[in-house]
Amino acid sequence: MSDLVSMSLEEVHALTTRVLRAHGVSVDQSRAIADTVSNAERDDCKSHGLFRVPGYVKSVVSGKVDAKAVPEMRDLAPGVIQVDGKHGFSPLALEFGRAPLIERARSQGIAALTIINAHHFAALWPEVEPLAEQGLVAFAFVDSFSYVAPAGGSKPLYGTNPMAFAWPRENHPPLVFDQATSVSARGEIQIHLRDGKPIPEGWAIDANGQPTTDPQAALDGAQLPFGGHKGAALSLMVELLAGALVGDVFSFEASARDNQDGGPPKGGELIIAIDPGRCVAGKQRAGQLAHAEALFTRVLEQEGTRLPSDRRYQARLRTPVEGISIPASLFETLQELQKV
Amino acid sequence: MSDLVSMSLEEVHALTTRVLRAHGVSVDQSRAIADTVSNAERDDCKSHGLFRVPGYVKSVVSGKVDAKAVPEMRDLAPGVIQVDGKHGFSPLALEFGRAPLIERARSQGIAALTIINAHHFAALWPEVEPLAEQGLVAFAFVDSFSYVAPAGGSKPLYGTNPMAFAWPRENHPPLVFDQATSVSARGEIQIHLRDGKPIPEGWAIDANGQPTTDPQAALDGAQLPFGGHKGAALSLMVELLAGALVGDVFSFEASARDNQDGGPPKGGELIIAIDPGRCVAGKQRAGQLAHAEALFTRVLEQEGTRLPSDRRYQARLRTPVEGISIPASLFETLQELQKV
Repeated sequence: MSDLVSMSLEEVHALTTRVLRAHGVSVDQSRAIADTVSNAERDDCKSHGLFRVPGYVKSVVSGKVDAKAVPEMRDLAPGVIQVDGKHGFSPLALEFGRAPLIERARSQGIAALTIINAHHFAALWPEVEPLAEQGLVAFAFVDSFSYVAPAGGSKPLYGTNPMAFAWPRENHPPLVFDQATSVSARGEIQIHLRDGKPIPEGWAIDANGQPTTDPQAALDGAQLPFGGHKGAALSLMVELLAGALVGDVFSFEASARDNQDGGPPKGGELIIAIDPGRCVAGKQRAGQLAHAEALFTRVLEQEGTRLPSDRRYQARLRTPVEGISIPASLFETLQELQKV
Repeated sequence: MSDLVSMSLEEVHALTTRVLRAHGVSVDQSRAIADTVSNAERDDCKSHGLFRVPGYVKSVVSGKVDAKAVPEMRDLAPGVIQVDGKHGFSPLALEFGRAPLIERARSQGIAALTIINAHHFAALWPEVEPLAEQGLVAFAFVDSFSYVAPAGGSKPLYGTNPMAFAWPRENHPPLVFDQATSVSARGEIQIHLRDGKPIPEGWAIDANGQPTTDPQAALDGAQLPFGGHKGAALSLMVELLAGALVGDVFSFEASARDNQDGGPPKGGELIIAIDPGRCVAGKQRAGQLAHAEALFTRVLEQEGTRLPSDRRYQARLRTPVEGISIPASLFETLQELQKV
């Protein structure tokens, strides 16, 4: 099982595209997903790379996702744009909204992009990093399936509900973090189950609300928010922003309507972009990003620290030269899937 | 020391005003602070109530804060307003910016208020709750003094850096949370020191970077972010938003320039307001807040749960009738301070 297959990033992109096209996913949806998947492999985010492709396919085969959907944009306010994913996958919906969001953030100072009726299966950093590459500060919030107990509770209600944040830097890729409001990702528990290993204490409770280190009991019970009631408050905030605010489902509603095909949940997303140059008076603009660098220097001069996203950027230097590798079993699955 | 003095909320407001006016604080600054202090006592947030008044006075006596400052507003972009506190206290600066922020959020869909050159000594929920009472979703971020170690580090760098969030509700006060990105408030450690009690494990490290339960060693060392590296990432985000983004100081810079008078740090703040009705197409507006109530119902039907801010609202029902009480020693201090 530990056999690995090496690939270049170009091969990752091409293979993803072939698999999706073989299942009738439109050219545009396929390209947007292949970009996302190959960028995840490039940054060594394996859980959002080729590993996800069979799940995309399952949700097309089951009919849950419209593989030919063409997103539609609506102008809701001077500072708010909505992209309706029309029940396709989120990467293309995001692509539709990105340029208008950038334009609005620059003209208004702050702007929001809401995405509705899209199926989310990717990380959140791809949402915010390109905005910060254009000089903007950005936030993103998305809900998921019902996995996490509320503060004081014992039953799953919230999603793992990540939030992402990006800050632009001069002569350096943006500072980005993208973190679940649960202690661990769902996938990490599944990997412990597969490997027959107990999970760390504090990750989850069983169906009776008792702490557990058994991964199956955790999957049958509820995951816990990070940092106790504070993380739970953030998870509740993400539900409200990606659900009621944008006019889409909460995680518990996504779970209730899902067909259990193993593919991504249907849901909404909120992205906020701010132009830092519009947040200070004219003469202060020149030093604004340099000021932030002074803080980063203070962080990094302490031993043992690193900045969020530095590990991704290190991988990004390596993988275009060295390529990436995936388990042979996954490679074979993908080979089969492109023939269908 | 356990003697208590009872007061009505009107007496809290009047006493605060008299103390501040006796030290030359302007009528408007005094009223804005007295509103904030009496609202904190009303909601049983003792650490931001009358307890804070001697600190306000100290920073006037030392000359750090301009007690007669009149804030100035600048229009930076269609969606961004700046209020310059002119080195006065933050409550009046906030008051200046609130109505224009509400107007911009409604007209633009999303808007930001930046506050600079103000001295912050209050909780953050007073920033966001009045915005949600006007039907808006709101966030607030503020930095403080350098108290908290970055992820992996061992020296203080970040502030306790709270963030607050509010969501509007029909026929109910808004859902609000206001939480430090550190495990504990600074004041909680000081109270443990005063009472000769050890602090819980996980709150802080000593000057050598080792875990400690000794409150003095904690104050001499560094507080820890809540939830490990995830809370640290949020604390870093708050530094960037309340510092470089709005054009004001980071917590380590506020510490470096402070005169150690025991009063509030100088700094910036970012408040974001979103009009939920502008984030969905017309026909969805009617059910938007009811949709959120369905989530709150799901939270509360689990045993052991409550919603953030429910404890404050319970106190708010009680204190207008029963009054509040403060330690006799604090009451005597305030009696003396109003004579000066």
